[in-house]
Amino acid sequence: MITAASNSRIKRLAALNQKARLRREEDVFLTEGVRMFREAPEEMIREVYVSERFLERCDCREKLSRTGYEVVADALFPKISDTCAPQGILCVLKQFHYARKDMTAGRAPLFLILENIQDPGNLGTMLRTAEGAGAAGVILSADTADVYNPKVIRSTMGSIYRVPFLRTEDLAGEIKALKDLGVRVYAAHLQGTGTYCAPDYRGASAFLIGNEGNGLTEATAALADERIRIPMSGKVESLNAAVSAALLLYEARRQREEKED
Amino acid sequence: MITAASNSRIKRLAALNQKARLRREEDVFLTEGVRMFREAPEEMIREVYVSERFLERCDCREKLSRTGYEVVADALFPKISDTCAPQGILCVLKQFHYARKDMTAGRAPLFLILENIQDPGNLGTMLRTAEGAGAAGVILSADTADVYNPKVIRSTMGSIYRVPFLRTEDLAGEIKALKDLGVRVYAAHLQGTGTYCAPDYRGASAFLIGNEGNGLTEATAALADERIRIPMSGKVESLNAAVSAALLLYEARRQREEKED
Repeated sequence: MITAASNSRIKRLAALNQKARLRREEDVFLTEGVRMFREAPEEMIREVYVSERFLERCDCREKLSRTGYEVVADALFPKISDTCAPQGILCVLKQFHYARKDMTAGRAPLFLILENIQDPGNLGTMLRTAEGAGAAGVILSADTADVYNPKVIRSTMGSIYRVPFLRTEDLAGEIKALKDLGVRVYAAHLQGTGTYCAPDYRGASAFLIGNEGNGLTEATAALADERIRIPMSGKVESLNAAVSAALLLYEARRQREEKED
Repeated sequence: MITAASNSRIKRLAALNQKARLRREEDVFLTEGVRMFREAPEEMIREVYVSERFLERCDCREKLSRTGYEVVADALFPKISDTCAPQGILCVLKQFHYARKDMTAGRAPLFLILENIQDPGNLGTMLRTAEGAGAAGVILSADTADVYNPKVIRSTMGSIYRVPFLRTEDLAGEIKALKDLGVRVYAAHLQGTGTYCAPDYRGASAFLIGNEGNGLTEATAALADERIRIPMSGKVESLNAAVSAALLLYEARRQREEKED
């Protein structure tokens, strides 16, 4: 059992919570809570830490016995946790490394392409919604928040384990590659010409969503095949970015299901 | 100019940021930032506080001269601010007091009814989305987070000034009253019988959304005319509450606009 705050592993875990660069160097990320442990793919789990109290009362001993685990003194657990009320279980997992072809294999794939999304809660919610809507994958510009940030992970509610995603230094190149594969690209834009319900999204489609405050850069919006607008009443200037992404993804899903009927 | 942290007004403003009960007793709430000041209805503004630096550079002197203002020393401003990077302008506004009839006057009004929503960001986003979708009002159960919490206010992006809302100790009574007025009530429910796109929302409609973790209580769900389900792919167990609200409100809007075409 680890009982000293000066333990090098305690210090490393605390640093992994805070530093994207360290996570990248070690090629790992952290998830917390019993639900995230249960849903974690076993082959990705590197290390598991549990508090004494958690171990006493937990009902996941079978998986724990397979993954192995280290006990951390109750008083010390908050030091390695990113939450105010830690559940007492933390996993270190290997990072995912998807390729474009992992996302483009299915029939009429649906994509979310994110440029410079900054709010971790928004980003996690978008991954969760993308899985729910049946998206094939999410493309992230390099200036988007780190997908392995603990707040992003929490907001995904487990979708981090299942939605393919790709962080790219060359967003324009990635968009062009998708277009070359026959994906039609739509930019969510306040100056869109048509409303988002007008196009036919039943073919391969991708939705471009930009930064919370500033929207898409003009250079990125210019790469889209079409600019679409979500209509807004009152004096609302824009919707929350995760809400916009959800409306577009689920409009595509609605059209696809309607056709099947 | 206020220069002492011990100033009673500084202490009161700090307390108003933190305590819902104090806000209720004084019948006021706080908003921050130049955008929230610009959009604030003048007749609701009680007090305005600006930092020295803000006053030097601001381009809203005309409105400031009408509302009046008090200068707070730059070093002191963070004490009255709820944000990490205060813009240097804070307003004290009178709370809103809407009645049911303020929401039910229009043709085929659309409502959001929230039970025990706890996340301030979700709640603010729902008010913002409700305005965007053209909702007539939002009903809040008494156990929902305080709508005047500074984090809620920020997430509304100004919609707090414009969307009618009603906090009620008797949610069941309020739902029944709406039904008596001919409003059809739909519960967003994981065990809903049909998908959310199936019903016709062109008449007066209300959507019931429950707590982030537990959904609607059975007692509240039982009051709905119909339970509807948002389809989810993969292993997603539920969507974010604000995302669910957005999908329902905008599906109603979509149907209403399609009919007009």
